[in-house]
Amino acid sequence: MAAVSFLRLLSVVCLLNFSFGYLPNWDSLDSRPLPEWFDQSKIGIFIHWGVFSVPSFSGAYMWYAWKGFKTPAIVKFMSENYPPDFTYPDFAAQFTAEFYDPDKWAKIFKASGAKYVVLVTKHHEGYTNWPSSYSWNWNSMDVGPKRDLTGDLAVAVRKQKDMKFGVYHSLFEFYNPLYLQDKANNYTTQEFVKTKTLPELYELVNKYHPELIWSDGAWEVDDFYWNSTDFLAWLYNSSPVKDSVVVNDRWGKNTPCKHGGYWNCKDKYNPRVLQKHKWENCMTLDLGSWGYRRPATYEDIISIEALIKTLAETISCGGNLLINVGPTHDGRIIPIFEERLRQLGSWLDLNGEAIYSSVPWTYQNDTLTSDVWYTSKKAANQTVVYAIVLNWPKNDLLILGSPLVTSATQVDLIGYTAELSWRALPEVETGMMITIPPVSVNTVTCKWAWVFRLTGLGN
Amino acid sequence: MAAVSFLRLLSVVCLLNFSFGYLPNWDSLDSRPLPEWFDQSKIGIFIHWGVFSVPSFSGAYMWYAWKGFKTPAIVKFMSENYPPDFTYPDFAAQFTAEFYDPDKWAKIFKASGAKYVVLVTKHHEGYTNWPSSYSWNWNSMDVGPKRDLTGDLAVAVRKQKDMKFGVYHSLFEFYNPLYLQDKANNYTTQEFVKTKTLPELYELVNKYHPELIWSDGAWEVDDFYWNSTDFLAWLYNSSPVKDSVVVNDRWGKNTPCKHGGYWNCKDKYNPRVLQKHKWENCMTLDLGSWGYRRPATYEDIISIEALIKTLAETISCGGNLLINVGPTHDGRIIPIFEERLRQLGSWLDLNGEAIYSSVPWTYQNDTLTSDVWYTSKKAANQTVVYAIVLNWPKNDLLILGSPLVTSATQVDLIGYTAELSWRALPEVETGMMITIPPVSVNTVTCKWAWVFRLTGLGN
Amino acid sequence: MAAVSFLRLLSVVCLLNFSFGYLPNWDSLDSRPLPEWFDQSKIGIFIHWGVFSVPSFSGAYMWYAWKGFKTPAIVKFMSENYPPDFTYPDFAAQFTAEFYDPDKWAKIFKASGAKYVVLVTKHHEGYTNWPSSYSWNWNSMDVGPKRDLTGDLAVAVRKQKDMKFGVYHSLFEFYNPLYLQDKANNYTTQEFVKTKTLPELYELVNKYHPELIWSDGAWEVDDFYWNSTDFLAWLYNSSPVKDSVVVNDRWGKNTPCKHGGYWNCKDKYNPRVLQKHKWENCMTLDLGSWGYRRPATYEDIISIEALIKTLAETISCGGNLLINVGPTHDGRIIPIFEERLRQLGSWLDLNGEAIYSSVPWTYQNDTLTSDVWYTSKKAANQTVVYAIVLNWPKNDLLILGSPLVTSATQVDLIGYTAELSWRALPEVETGMMITIPPVSVNTVTCKWAWVFRLTGLGN
Amino acid sequence: MAAVSFLRLLSVVCLLNFSFGYLPNWDSLDSRPLPEWFDQSKIGIFIHWGVFSVPSFSGAYMWYAWKGFKTPAIVKFMSENYPPDFTYPDFAAQFTAEFYDPDKWAKIFKASGAKYVVLVTKHHEGYTNWPSSYSWNWNSMDVGPKRDLTGDLAVAVRKQKDMKFGVYHSLFEFYNPLYLQDKANNYTTQEFVKTKTLPELYELVNKYHPELIWSDGAWEVDDFYWNSTDFLAWLYNSSPVKDSVVVNDRWGKNTPCKHGGYWNCKDKYNPRVLQKHKWENCMTLDLGSWGYRRPATYEDIISIEALIKTLAETISCGGNLLINVGPTHDGRIIPIFEERLRQLGSWLDLNGEAIYSSVPWTYQNDTLTSDVWYTSKKAANQTVVYAIVLNWPKNDLLILGSPLVTSATQVDLIGYTAELSWRALPEVETGMMITIPPVSVNTVTCKWAWVFRLTGLGN
Repeated sequence: MAAVSFLRLLSVVCLLNFSFGYLPNWDSLDSRPLPEWFDQSKIGIFIHWGVFSVPSFSGAYMWYAWKGFKTPAIVKFMSENYPPDFTYPDFAAQFTAEFYDPDKWAKIFKASGAKYVVLVTKHHEGYTNWPSSYSWNWNSMDVGPKRDLTGDLAVAVRKQKDMKFGVYHSLFEFYNPLYLQDKANNYTTQEFVKTKTLPELYELVNKYHPELIWSDGAWEVDDFYWNSTDFLAWLYNSSPVKDSVVVNDRWGKNTPCKHGGYWNCKDKYNPRVLQKHKWENCMTLDLGSWGYRRPATYEDIISIEALIKTLAETISCGGNLLINVGPTHDGRIIPIFEERLRQLGSWLDLNGEAIYSSVPWTYQNDTLTSDVWYTSKKAANQTVVYAIVLNWPKNDLLILGSPLVTSATQVDLIGYTAELSWRALPEVETGMMITIPPVSVNTVTCKWAWVFRLTGLGN
Repeated sequence: MAAVSFLRLLSVVCLLNFSFGYLPNWDSLDSRPLPEWFDQSKIGIFIHWGVFSVPSFSGAYMWYAWKGFKTPAIVKFMSENYPPDFTYPDFAAQFTAEFYDPDKWAKIFKASGAKYVVLVTKHHEGYTNWPSSYSWNWNSMDVGPKRDLTGDLAVAVRKQKDMKFGVYHSLFEFYNPLYLQDKANNYTTQEFVKTKTLPELYELVNKYHPELIWSDGAWEVDDFYWNSTDFLAWLYNSSPVKDSVVVNDRWGKNTPCKHGGYWNCKDKYNPRVLQKHKWENCMTLDLGSWGYRRPATYEDIISIEALIKTLAETISCGGNLLINVGPTHDGRIIPIFEERLRQLGSWLDLNGEAIYSSVPWTYQNDTLTSDVWYTSKKAANQTVVYAIVLNWPKNDLLILGSPLVTSATQVDLIGYTAELSWRALPEVETGMMITIPPVSVNTVTCKWAWVFRLTGLGN
Repeated sequence: MAAVSFLRLLSVVCLLNFSFGYLPNWDSLDSRPLPEWFDQSKIGIFIHWGVFSVPSFSGAYMWYAWKGFKTPAIVKFMSENYPPDFTYPDFAAQFTAEFYDPDKWAKIFKASGAKYVVLVTKHHEGYTNWPSSYSWNWNSMDVGPKRDLTGDLAVAVRKQKDMKFGVYHSLFEFYNPLYLQDKANNYTTQEFVKTKTLPELYELVNKYHPELIWSDGAWEVDDFYWNSTDFLAWLYNSSPVKDSVVVNDRWGKNTPCKHGGYWNCKDKYNPRVLQKHKWENCMTLDLGSWGYRRPATYEDIISIEALIKTLAETISCGGNLLINVGPTHDGRIIPIFEERLRQLGSWLDLNGEAIYSSVPWTYQNDTLTSDVWYTSKKAANQTVVYAIVLNWPKNDLLILGSPLVTSATQVDLIGYTAELSWRALPEVETGMMITIPPVSVNTVTCKWAWVFRLTGLGN
Repeated sequence: MAAVSFLRLLSVVCLLNFSFGYLPNWDSLDSRPLPEWFDQSKIGIFIHWGVFSVPSFSGAYMWYAWKGFKTPAIVKFMSENYPPDFTYPDFAAQFTAEFYDPDKWAKIFKASGAKYVVLVTKHHEGYTNWPSSYSWNWNSMDVGPKRDLTGDLAVAVRKQKDMKFGVYHSLFEFYNPLYLQDKANNYTTQEFVKTKTLPELYELVNKYHPELIWSDGAWEVDDFYWNSTDFLAWLYNSSPVKDSVVVNDRWGKNTPCKHGGYWNCKDKYNPRVLQKHKWENCMTLDLGSWGYRRPATYEDIISIEALIKTLAETISCGGNLLINVGPTHDGRIIPIFEERLRQLGSWLDLNGEAIYSSVPWTYQNDTLTSDVWYTSKKAANQTVVYAIVLNWPKNDLLILGSPLVTSATQVDLIGYTAELSWRALPEVETGMMITIPPVSVNTVTCKWAWVFRLTGLGN
């Protein structure tokens, strides 16, 4: 009944918007339903690439870490290896990208099981990875790669079946003098917004038709300064991607976890509890950096086990997982990153049914056994529940506290041919004990995490 | 009588402008009297310095000559010496200016006898030689010198007694994408004017208080696009230099030789006949280039004789002479340029009275003897006429066709102690023959050109 | 009896050499026993590092591949990315090594299970990775790293317990003009040998006391030109490493597989049959290159399974395995290489007893089941045989054709606690069938390859 | 009579040397007559060009001044403009020479009036300006210009009529490790001499057939170490230039002003008194440096008056004048240098008869009037004496104290058509007073210095 009312309301809203379009205020903008593809896709690839990939010493915040925070390690690195008056913009000429092969990248991303790609088109440094008219001589066509990095990747990603292309865009720029002037004016002026950051954002959408906009860098001032609602109203009503585009929630200091499309919130990417609003967990293969860091060693790279654990935690709680890679200044995805992505893809080849288009179940993780995370799917007459088991059960006995078993309950292990036997936990309402018969090393074709498929559970 | 009326009219205009200020139209703007210092100064130094000083191969138009005209010699030079994807903006990092010593420059300029200095603060390449907020990462503080080239020179020039500081500024930028877009829009939009070139010009005036603005690059479209009259009305009414500032006439395709302050007109710097409007002759010590060119050899450098000849021709016809030097990418004025400037200064030390604060005479050059140019000065009761003689008279006999001699006529040679004897030319109304007594090589302390001072002539 | 005679002969030889030293001829030099540490160590690390690590495009032969073979891909890469007159020596300045941390390297090597490290101190490019007096301005102290790469690694390796330090040294240099002159003289002159390559080799030994010399680049001319026997006689008789040093067999066109210490032979690193002379299998983690190659992707990197297979094949046939890594120009071992080395180390932590100090068994690989390789060890009263099984047996039934079982025969699987049951193969003389009980995924702590320990076999 | 004896003796010496050749000792070597062309030529051009031309900050000694003396200005310059670990050899890659046009150079040198050219082929830095086999990767073909700078100039100079090509070569190299080792061995070893410096010198002679060898850098040890006498014996007896070659006197710490060909002696280039042995005065157009210095300003450049004064002083005392220019790193002779050379050439066009093939007169400078220098020539029946007058005589009256007048004495001023009147000085034995009639500025076509030709003097 409530669902019906909701749908009725929704159609009214849609009708209104069809007539009048979304209005540039949050009530109206927030009423837009999130396009379905996003929740169904579950996994995306994030790409942090820019001038910071040249020093590749401390990630995407290098400029500010060096000149703002004056992080000693960076100051030391620079003074030991560069002339005294070397500046951050001087790095741009060395952003060579000579090995950049967007098709090769797209194939790796496809192989990982991701369904969308979000490229950093402009980070806080202000350098645009496309030939922007509003960032003359501070973009990838004029200085460095001499190439439209964004356009070339958009084409390559879309060549892959069932993949969408999105863009990260920072509203804020650390050292743009127009921004600094607006800030000094207590944000009573909008020179920066009107001549740099918003013209670029419109240009991005009109040129590349991104299906996702990952906005960032809005934390210093509320959305009134950024003209965010105007942009979003245009994006939803009139832009070339008005029907399909998805955005996040970083459109002003006041918007994270409140307004926009899905939520990244702020500094809290992986809550491990069910969220009421669609959200996304961003994480990075180099545990210490979003941008490529040369000093990163093997131990800084996430293990495949930890990557799958993060995936399970995220999907169980209703999130999408956005997995970041930092390419090198010369345009490569280093082999260890490719390995992790292909390992994940091989796991999803087998276990993807527990992930894609799944919905959170009643429970997110098991009440008795730790490191067991649930997802579910509505099938024809019933609900299928997936228990993603991160550690092989001791003594081959899997105890699950959350399922309510019925006589119709069946259990099998994805990748193992036979049905498994189980019995209810004694003396409690819910819970079951699944016995896994001794198996040869080779019998279970799965590694790193195991998915048990439960059907016929009670509600 | 006419003069009196004119002065009366002038005072009315001034009064009006005092009350209401100049209006943003040419009638009003052109009514502003040119500040007197400019005509009195006679000689200025022009400095072409910018990113083009790095390749220093073909002058300030290098970018367009390479990419627009595709001048074969430049294309060859680039392909032989740089990687294939090297671009013009890549040169900026090598604009090092490590030997830039503004005080040393100012002393050389002072020694040349110049009274004002005009620095190229932004040429058609769009790179600003000061830290402009509107040219982020394409200015001398962010990339290259890491220094405020303009501000530092302004201070140094003003340390010299009786020298003024001016700026050259190109409205137009070859490859600015915003300009190209406005142009593609048939100049119905003004994105470029409103966000780049005019904000920079206001910034220049407010930061550096230039006493001269040498505008350039307006030739593709009339002044309506450039908002020139608005700028000039502000400059004359409200700017920090409203009383002293002098501008030239390049404020739109329609303005040269018509509107503005003094006239540079266009491609016609040295007319060799008297002009009705105050004008300026721009020329350069490297005869083949405004910007420094490494391939320039000795024969490309103007001789001191030719430089003084140009000076005489210019001053005689009512012009100012703006002498250009192109400094090197590392901040030096090469010795041959310094030599020419100091040679000129030594000539002016002796002969300056014929130049500074002079006014054109009845005749500009002599009617009988070529290469004799006249200037004049009103002294207490009489007019002094100066005949600048570029070639030593054959047989030590100087024949002048233009002067009307009287019994009071006296002649002397500047730098020679005795009065010279003369007689009227026979059988003609005007003209005289001056006999120079045989003199020792050392007796005349002057070289290159000789100034004869004539007093007591008839009108 | 034969063994006793051999030992007696050996002691006589040793006595002679003690008295008179080794003579500079192959009969005498070849009589020197190989120091025992080498065969016991089994696993070493090879490091290809040099100026070729800067382009890092096609490995250590880049100079010759570019200028000699004119490999199209390299010619294209260079012409697209460098100025036309860029030369190979120009790369040296970019050999920065700013992240070079010899202790970090040594720890990774130690963790891999390797017992010795062989650094390329000079490859065919002639650039020395130490400050050689004979390679002025073409060594790592004068140009590039500004550091003694060799000395620093020697110290770091020796800090690790039970690790030895060796050097690779190329006698030949592609483009040394002195070598080319000697060659043009049909090797009747030895300018190159006497002033460059041999002085460097003596310098290397005297400065760094390497316990292994991996000689290379001798293939164009016999050892008479290289003065190899003189050097080896000095090395064995008088050098600071005369007792411990091990050398290989590349000392002239005529020496591989004939003379020297252990054999690398030539282009035949992994014979897969038992060798009569101690040998070493060199292979590289990047299957396509010895030097670091940026274009190498994940599929070019050897898998851990293939690495262990190569190890098993090599050790079974009496060889040592020398595993190559190519560090980057800035001094890093990339994470995928570190991962492989640590994976190998983790396998050896469990299974090392089958490798270190082992000797070849009667059979090298099994006569019935492929991908089973044998090693053995003499224990107190008996021989232990190790069957390294590369693929998990189908149906958990391992059939071995080579062992001759007895009633005392026992079998266990390293990393599995219980003894395994077996029975003789019916109707044949040798062979056995081992039944592996069904085990949980977690029970066998081993991955990638499994070692079965067989005792009580018949001879 | 004496002359006849001398010629007889000379023919005996020559005969001996024809039979047996010069012996490798100074008595024999010093007996070789200096080829006549050298003394007749009088004027040469010296060219200091090398890696030091890249920093072009403090001349040819830059390396040692920086790292040895640690001159504060250089240390500061380097630390302010280069990365901390930048080394002197790193400069070599920037020695681009892209504007090097040997024919243009040769024409300028020809126009200066010089008759020979001495190119620095290797300075104390050890870098050879030709592709030496003994300086691999430290020469102009391998690193930097990628060109045979020496060979190309040799060809160009010899295309000019009546010009000879010579080479400067430093025996010593500041930082060659082989030299430093020999020095540490107290010069008991000669590794450096035998493998680097002497092979290069032989190579130079055999490849380029220089007619002059300007040896340098021998001051730390006597000639026994340098094997100088062996080299010279070969040079005089067997080399391809044995008949024409001229050398100087810097062949060991013990040789300057004692042995060799003509004398440069040491740190005493312009003695201003007659020398008993043929000598050469080396001076440089940049008064502060032999190598090109960017910081040199106009006042550091010799004036044409001072250059002619130096010429007069030198030739009068029997010397040759070697005028140094320092080309830029990109291969140019800057305009101010070209100007000086062409000014000198224009002076010599008129006055060359007083210089070329002249011999010193009885007096070198005048006994009464300062800045008057004499040369002379034997003509058919008489001696012509030239008085080079550096300052125009006061009151047009030239007083000369040295000439002994006779009734046949005649005086004229080169470039002035009429014979001048004179009278003997009263009351003294020698001396004369020459009256110069008043002349027009244009009558004397000469500037800077005036040559009076005296004939018919008494002995």
